[in-house]
Amino acid sequence: MDSLRLRILTDGKNLGNGILKVDSFLNHQVDPLLLNECGHELAARFAQVGATKVLTAEISGIAPALTTALHLGIPIVYARKSKPITMPDQVYLTLAPSHTRGGTVELIVSPEFLSGRERVLIIDDFLASGQTILGLARLARAAGATVVGVGAVIEKRFEGGRALLADLHVPIESLAILVDMSEGRIVFLEP
Amino acid sequence: MDSLRLRILTDGKNLGNGILKVDSFLNHQVDPLLLNECGHELAARFAQVGATKVLTAEISGIAPALTTALHLGIPIVYARKSKPITMPDQVYLTLAPSHTRGGTVELIVSPEFLSGRERVLIIDDFLASGQTILGLARLARAAGATVVGVGAVIEKRFEGGRALLADLHVPIESLAILVDMSEGRIVFLEP
Repeated sequence: MDSLRLRILTDGKNLGNGILKVDSFLNHQVDPLLLNECGHELAARFAQVGATKVLTAEISGIAPALTTALHLGIPIVYARKSKPITMPDQVYLTLAPSHTRGGTVELIVSPEFLSGRERVLIIDDFLASGQTILGLARLARAAGATVVGVGAVIEKRFEGGRALLADLHVPIESLAILVDMSEGRIVFLEP
Repeated sequence: MDSLRLRILTDGKNLGNGILKVDSFLNHQVDPLLLNECGHELAARFAQVGATKVLTAEISGIAPALTTALHLGIPIVYARKSKPITMPDQVYLTLAPSHTRGGTVELIVSPEFLSGRERVLIIDDFLASGQTILGLARLARAAGATVVGVGAVIEKRFEGGRALLADLHVPIESLAILVDMSEGRIVFLEP
């Protein structure tokens, strides 16, 4: 997606160690028009997979998942990282290693909103190590649901997530794919 | 907003102690079409205040803030509850008492995205005690910005938040106003 790549080059910052600072438009400040365009594009790429629900993880997955779901006309569920008091005692919970924060985070979904009949499209802001998305896929499968696709706004190809997710045997789509962030570079995969 | 009130009556659950469970469409599972309608309505109500930025708090404020900002065509900033590694060391931070979780939560905004020139519209999912919204207003004012309005999807009028926020001297708009949740009731303010 040209507008996204341009925005990353204009406003993104390579902080080193594979960390891309995009908090001016994606995950602290959010540009709703750009995110709406991302959602439109992801919805188009997954128009044929028959998704009934979009699944993401709080916090920064919510914006792209919401705009994708808006264009597909289906609900979104965001996995919580702590259990709110409104959630039943019996939940689906999995642990995912956290790349940016260290340690592990819990991903929790209420069984009220994931069932064996669902066809789940997983959407997140980043596809990097793939661990969060793999955790979401585990939650979906624990509920007996079928994962039908994985979409991300930005992929860091060099962190190996796409390879890790190959076992899911579903289409994986990213709107901007980074192949090199060494020595301050921001290099995209040629489209 | 009739569609929202109907949805609360249909799918919301009064769990007692003033707790309204709306996680089937607002804050775990999200209905993007309803949220888009909420955003459209909030944008219309604040069309004249000259907002340059929507400010909210993660997590459940993100969806209504994003759709409101989309219809206003301005950026959203969501205050973080913990500081990510991509944020500078010097930040705006305030503490807000947490009604649903107990204790206090930190609300953190990077000075990169709030400045003295901003006209800030605060949007959240709930206006209850008003403490989170008041915290967001403190952050905006710490940055020298002007708060120009407060909007919420659901207001629990009986928790007193609107009175607390009166000192801000800005318009306050809620799309569904609850006046009684005692003994299992869900009673709206007559429109």
